[in-house]
Amino acid sequence: MRVLALLDGTLADPDAPLIRIDDLGLVRGDGIFETILVVDGKPRELGPHLDRLERSAAMLDLPAPDRAGYERAAKAVLDNWSGSAEMALKLVMTRGVEGGDGTPTGFALGLEISPKVLAQRAEGIAAVTLDRGIEPGLAERAPWLLLGAKSLSYAVNMAALREAERRGAAEVVFTTSGGSVLEGPTSTLIAVRGRTLTTPPATLGILPGTTQAVLFQAAEQAGWTVVVEPIAAEDLFTADAVLLVSSVRSITRVHTLDGRALPDSTALHAELHALYESQY
Amino acid sequence: MRVLALLDGTLADPDAPLIRIDDLGLVRGDGIFETILVVDGKPRELGPHLDRLERSAAMLDLPAPDRAGYERAAKAVLDNWSGSAEMALKLVMTRGVEGGDGTPTGFALGLEISPKVLAQRAEGIAAVTLDRGIEPGLAERAPWLLLGAKSLSYAVNMAALREAERRGAAEVVFTTSGGSVLEGPTSTLIAVRGRTLTTPPATLGILPGTTQAVLFQAAEQAGWTVVVEPIAAEDLFTADAVLLVSSVRSITRVHTLDGRALPDSTALHAELHALYESQY
Repeated sequence: MRVLALLDGTLADPDAPLIRIDDLGLVRGDGIFETILVVDGKPRELGPHLDRLERSAAMLDLPAPDRAGYERAAKAVLDNWSGSAEMALKLVMTRGVEGGDGTPTGFALGLEISPKVLAQRAEGIAAVTLDRGIEPGLAERAPWLLLGAKSLSYAVNMAALREAERRGAAEVVFTTSGGSVLEGPTSTLIAVRGRTLTTPPATLGILPGTTQAVLFQAAEQAGWTVVVEPIAAEDLFTADAVLLVSSVRSITRVHTLDGRALPDSTALHAELHALYESQY
Repeated sequence: MRVLALLDGTLADPDAPLIRIDDLGLVRGDGIFETILVVDGKPRELGPHLDRLERSAAMLDLPAPDRAGYERAAKAVLDNWSGSAEMALKLVMTRGVEGGDGTPTGFALGLEISPKVLAQRAEGIAAVTLDRGIEPGLAERAPWLLLGAKSLSYAVNMAALREAERRGAAEVVFTTSGGSVLEGPTSTLIAVRGRTLTTPPATLGILPGTTQAVLFQAAEQAGWTVVVEPIAAEDLFTADAVLLVSSVRSITRVHTLDGRALPDSTALHAELHALYESQY
């Protein structure tokens, strides 16, 4: 099942053409998006997701997103959903048509979560490390590279996932050329060692994770230590758990990295997943 | 005036929606394009542009473009054009809709060339150097970064042009962090010194230029020396001419770089422009 709504709250047919061929989102990947998990009709972290949409808009010099419009569209999708208990809610904003009056294109789309993602949540995944070609300091020095913006220009993220598949894996851990961990193409990385959770800093040029933020808050309250600092890729092989987290995949554990089996993190994963779910 | 044609040769209304909201070209910037100059009804370098579309497709693991379909669509646009003598002909191919049967989305669009570009061709431009954050060797080491593919994920190229505008310039010369020249966001750079034309090698992770190739061939036949090798950004300030070339902008000279006036290249530009035009 799929439900599509526009920012005025009206529904549209997701199988019918809606976008012009000169929309800058299409011809230049010039736009931004967010994907939100909805469980039993309740969107998770809608506010933080809209905040991040605003930050992405600012990084791309887009007008501020029509927050009321996205909330209206999200509500229309939720009100008209009769699919599974869990839904992926995608919010999209583009720069609008080329040479137009600057009115952005915007919509909200409710989607079923793919069986593949549901299986990965339960069983974990194999991942490979791939060089993302960015070095510490670059994101701050060169903001026009849009590192850390959630833009529609995701061809590289998709190409990395295809490369992972070619190597017999399902996911990617991007690294700097110097071997420091960044993020997944559509997820945040968390390494667990003892009772400490570590994630790399957003200043490296990666997306601040909404799911990571919730998990860190919950873990801290439960007595865990949470740290935001660079992680050497080498250290992932000896971590007690390596997690890739995102709204739709939730907390997913990496069981194999670059073809090497990682220490069994089944129990740790279950504990942290329960901690995350306790927030809702 | 604008003319839109599909790969079966039929025309469509460019102002009407044609693309679904789940087209991967829109939501992932997952597709490729080419822009071709048409003068008096004759497309320039259509073959090399279709060859490059094929190379981009291979880099993105897309199916081979429907060459006959793009030729058919291009012909339909040309046959129905009643605008200016010069036209920009854009060919677009996306991965198609998410979760679909893999059929790509494709079209050809004929557009007027903007007055801004026509003025820049005549008067030259101010440009700024901006760090592209890629180092020599990266493109070959990390093909998933799609460096040198003409993809629809051009948000960074557009952001760089906005940064240039903020700095009072119209164009960008991307450099490596080490200060080696790469290319413009939508153009190839050529430096002229004496009777020698130099352009950086595509192996740096830049797009091989169709217009640059034609100019180099013409110049070589006319007794110039042509060289493909790295260029230090510093050396641009003392070059006899710095040119940004592309199909639509043709041969455009840079008169100001990073706020510094470059040596007057009016005569050299006129000579090289005439050499380029002599090929048609």
